[in-house]
Amino acid sequence: MFNTVPLIQVMRGSRLEAVFRGAVAVVDADGRLAASLGDAGLTTWLRSSAKPFQLLPLVESGAADRFGFSDRELAVMAASHNGEEFHVQTVLDILGRIGLDASALQCGAHSPLHTPAARALENAGQQPSALHNNCSGKHSGMLAQCVDRQLPIANYLSPQHPIQVTIKQTLAELADVPPDSVGVAVDGCSVPTFALPLHRAALAFARLADPSGLSEPRRSALRRIAAAMMAFPEMVGGTLRLDTDVMRAGKGRIVVKGGAEGYYGIGLLQSPGLGVALKMEDGNEGRGRNAVVVEALRQLGTLDAQARAALEP
Amino acid sequence: MFNTVPLIQVMRGSRLEAVFRGAVAVVDADGRLAASLGDAGLTTWLRSSAKPFQLLPLVESGAADRFGFSDRELAVMAASHNGEEFHVQTVLDILGRIGLDASALQCGAHSPLHTPAARALENAGQQPSALHNNCSGKHSGMLAQCVDRQLPIANYLSPQHPIQVTIKQTLAELADVPPDSVGVAVDGCSVPTFALPLHRAALAFARLADPSGLSEPRRSALRRIAAAMMAFPEMVGGTLRLDTDVMRAGKGRIVVKGGAEGYYGIGLLQSPGLGVALKMEDGNEGRGRNAVVVEALRQLGTLDAQARAALEP
Repeated sequence: MFNTVPLIQVMRGSRLEAVFRGAVAVVDADGRLAASLGDAGLTTWLRSSAKPFQLLPLVESGAADRFGFSDRELAVMAASHNGEEFHVQTVLDILGRIGLDASALQCGAHSPLHTPAARALENAGQQPSALHNNCSGKHSGMLAQCVDRQLPIANYLSPQHPIQVTIKQTLAELADVPPDSVGVAVDGCSVPTFALPLHRAALAFARLADPSGLSEPRRSALRRIAAAMMAFPEMVGGTLRLDTDVMRAGKGRIVVKGGAEGYYGIGLLQSPGLGVALKMEDGNEGRGRNAVVVEALRQLGTLDAQARAALEP
Repeated sequence: MFNTVPLIQVMRGSRLEAVFRGAVAVVDADGRLAASLGDAGLTTWLRSSAKPFQLLPLVESGAADRFGFSDRELAVMAASHNGEEFHVQTVLDILGRIGLDASALQCGAHSPLHTPAARALENAGQQPSALHNNCSGKHSGMLAQCVDRQLPIANYLSPQHPIQVTIKQTLAELADVPPDSVGVAVDGCSVPTFALPLHRAALAFARLADPSGLSEPRRSALRRIAAAMMAFPEMVGGTLRLDTDVMRAGKGRIVVKGGAEGYYGIGLLQSPGLGVALKMEDGNEGRGRNAVVVEALRQLGTLDAQARAALEP
């Protein structure tokens, strides 16, 4: 059972109508627990919040430079994108650079998360493809890792594939845990997903925001990924998406990545950097989590009144 | 704070990914607590689960017969309907019988809950009206109570309006609590909504299913309302709606009415009747609550394998 605490209470008139429970861990880039609510050691799946770290081997190996990927392309590789036209086109560009096409993506197809994009596709009589899958950027980045290392692409989803082994090893190092302690299961898009205690995931986000204590080439690679996500926040989510809106409001001081089932990771670019990992017990995103994220950022002093107003909707 | 217990656990691989908490009270028509999970005395808003009882004064006063309302019309008065064409037409018929039109409805407009109905409206270039509001049947029933009692209709939403006072008094009697103890707030559609302890709301549902211990005309009125809802379950919800599907599967043995924020009321037509009231702590409906409802019905022995299979989706 999760050891969580009530994070939000919804009232109707004078009476309680709903409660959203969760747990939050705040850790600095040196690994010190700075604050927590509920069980900071709560261990659960990072889901899409792992994407910046799943991209890390591509950048720190030098492969991103060898392929000449732009920051815009790196941002969509760390995305749970909306399937808007500019996302789809960017993923196609990535695949083109590595000599592949959409048929190599094994993420499966779903309708664009952005309703107008889904409607437009429907009205044009087209079926959604793997390119519209919110994870298609991540998958194209994984394929790039395969191509760069001259590894087979047919089985890139397998937890035993060398790129997945490297990804898990890299995440474990960032979170400062033995690789064997990292939980592995299958994510919604079929790739391996990882479980860590919240305070360990928060450390990984603190290091994404502030890798100054790490050695090269990891330090530069983390800086480049965070910078790419913050420079092109619309690539990481899209229209009316929390990740996008928070990074816009953060103006280069906040890097974030949400995950399914009420997960969220935040990195604050300060010295030392701070990382936050939080999990809503009920896995809900729209209702409880987004409000918790904004309130956490407010309590950490990272949002001024103007930025909070921008995130109000 | 709610005193709830975990009702559903969602796993990914070998690890917990989400937990849905709630409380459940099962009470027989004599008011005996038969079973509970969490706090049977948890007091919160019934929301739309109160609709069968908000309709009761219209039927037990004889007004429903004076207007010649059909069971189909009574069912939509107890509904949170989908705004499908047949719902809208039935509400129009009700308003016609009482000499009013849609302009008398003060529920406000929202798009039909049923996506194809909402799309059809949009494609026809039409705006949703108050008729499409899921509560328009309830509002038309309240207007009928006004017209029958020759009371003003302009202020029928007010908690002080005589029909709302009668409704609250009637619900308190069914739940066997002092009227002053019933919490009152404003529902999403602007009418008063009511708070009761779960085991008291469960008693009201037990009596809806089995009013044999009550005197006339309430006994017959409750029988008629339950029969109307079970005979026309598509009027109470609509296509792909839990209330509709459960009553269809129940074949005249189960009367149900869901409410917003994870509330649910169930009446089992047996001797003595059983009532169930349950609340999901996080107010979620689609994910946790619907599974809890089906599992509760299974554990109460009311669904055979065929009925459970029908509810699987």
